[in-house]
Amino acid sequence: MNESDFIAALRTLPLHAGARALEDDCAVLELGGETLILTHDMMAEGTHFLANQDMADVAWKLVATNLSDLAAKGAEPVGVMLGHCLSADDERFLIGLHEALNQFEVPLLGGDTISAGASRVFGLTAIGRATHLPVPDRGLAKPGDAVFVTGTLGRAMLGLEEIGSGSENDLAYRRPAPLLAEGRALAPHVSAMMDVSDGLLLDSWRIAVASKVTLQLDSAAFPVADQARLDECIRWGDDYELLFTAPEDCRLPVPAHRIGKVEKQGPAPLRVDGKILTPEDGIGYRHG
Amino acid sequence: MNESDFIAALRTLPLHAGARALEDDCAVLELGGETLILTHDMMAEGTHFLANQDMADVAWKLVATNLSDLAAKGAEPVGVMLGHCLSADDERFLIGLHEALNQFEVPLLGGDTISAGASRVFGLTAIGRATHLPVPDRGLAKPGDAVFVTGTLGRAMLGLEEIGSGSENDLAYRRPAPLLAEGRALAPHVSAMMDVSDGLLLDSWRIAVASKVTLQLDSAAFPVADQARLDECIRWGDDYELLFTAPEDCRLPVPAHRIGKVEKQGPAPLRVDGKILTPEDGIGYRHG
Repeated sequence: MNESDFIAALRTLPLHAGARALEDDCAVLELGGETLILTHDMMAEGTHFLANQDMADVAWKLVATNLSDLAAKGAEPVGVMLGHCLSADDERFLIGLHEALNQFEVPLLGGDTISAGASRVFGLTAIGRATHLPVPDRGLAKPGDAVFVTGTLGRAMLGLEEIGSGSENDLAYRRPAPLLAEGRALAPHVSAMMDVSDGLLLDSWRIAVASKVTLQLDSAAFPVADQARLDECIRWGDDYELLFTAPEDCRLPVPAHRIGKVEKQGPAPLRVDGKILTPEDGIGYRHG
Repeated sequence: MNESDFIAALRTLPLHAGARALEDDCAVLELGGETLILTHDMMAEGTHFLANQDMADVAWKLVATNLSDLAAKGAEPVGVMLGHCLSADDERFLIGLHEALNQFEVPLLGGDTISAGASRVFGLTAIGRATHLPVPDRGLAKPGDAVFVTGTLGRAMLGLEEIGSGSENDLAYRRPAPLLAEGRALAPHVSAMMDVSDGLLLDSWRIAVASKVTLQLDSAAFPVADQARLDECIRWGDDYELLFTAPEDCRLPVPAHRIGKVEKQGPAPLRVDGKILTPEDGIGYRHG
């Protein structure tokens, strides 16, 4: 059973209405006059980090990736719960965790610490508070909207090749920053929004599918770190930029690149320079 | 670094006030007009389950142990977030998960599914809503209170020896039931409460330490599944009964055994039949 099969099977279980049919990165829970945003991401050795990687970076990234999901919902972080398997480098893990909690001003709420032999698997649940309703969603892109992405794509990919160099790319890979302020500023303006964790093309395809529209993208407008490697930059994940759709004439509160437009649902969810691309064409990072 | 050292280090990080200094099983989050209870427990192969165990039982137990933490807070479950490492027995895992969600009437809110090689580590975050304020806590036992425990201790221990037999003990080990209704009924009456996950003695010691009192227990009153193995029954965990303190003259809404009394803080947190016992004496299950 691969990841897609497993998630499809989960969809047949009793789901909370706020689970958004498991089609989004976060759950949305209305409770006590507030709207809570909940997300849980895991990281495992061999899949999400290398055995010899600095565990301070792993802990930082565990926090950052979860907060990035909150950022794409325009949410303000409330706290995090840590699921931790004890391992040899726990001192470094704690240093990175401390740095990330300080940097993003989010406190620890609790969690669990276990012995799991040689397994290095970590989980984090991040809890946030919505700052704008409706909460941005993957599924609300509308025909006529423009498609935007913040920042530069491919930095994390280049960073993995330059790991430990201290370069801007290296930091983009090891110490990504969730765009929390940008997400909050954008939330009132966007129709759909998500963070680019699995590559620009795959994540664009996901917005299109969830919104039942076609995204028509223009490759000349893609903001990539290395033009000579454009194809890779838009297929690699880990950049944590914000990908969103908004009305053509919207005055955006943060800088972003206009990379295409939303059209009525055509024969395929995604076209780049007019050409149909599907997940079978290897458009991004897919797990297991 | 063992579990205690790691948790001690976590206490030096920025903590949310609702983290209760990481001295409780749950975080308590006041939000709008509601009080949320959050808990996260992990299970790993080799530590919490055996390689050849039915993964349906593992999934059930993952849900049940987390809901048991909510039960001890008198909370009503709202939903759960699953952190799942894909493995060979995912079909069975899904069956057990489905059965548990149905049985305890709690919906799935979301989570994450990853590939983690051969690692079988699972996490669950359970979210509940407090039904009584103040939320029961380990740290509120008062001198003069009596000490109570529900049910029978040692069933899960015997069940592991009889695994697969279908006996009552077998089910107690494989399919524990969180005492949600009992916890809600007790919440208005108790001073301190927790679930017995790591053994009666160790968990009693924890209440005493958190409450800065001494618990004086009477071994003749311990409700154990096998009197000849009393020492083991009160040191083994996994029973998920409720251990609590309440005023002597309290009329309890659910059946429970009176096993001792709370005294002012003496030279040691725990005495059984007058004899001091400490964690160094091997009084329960400690990880890592």
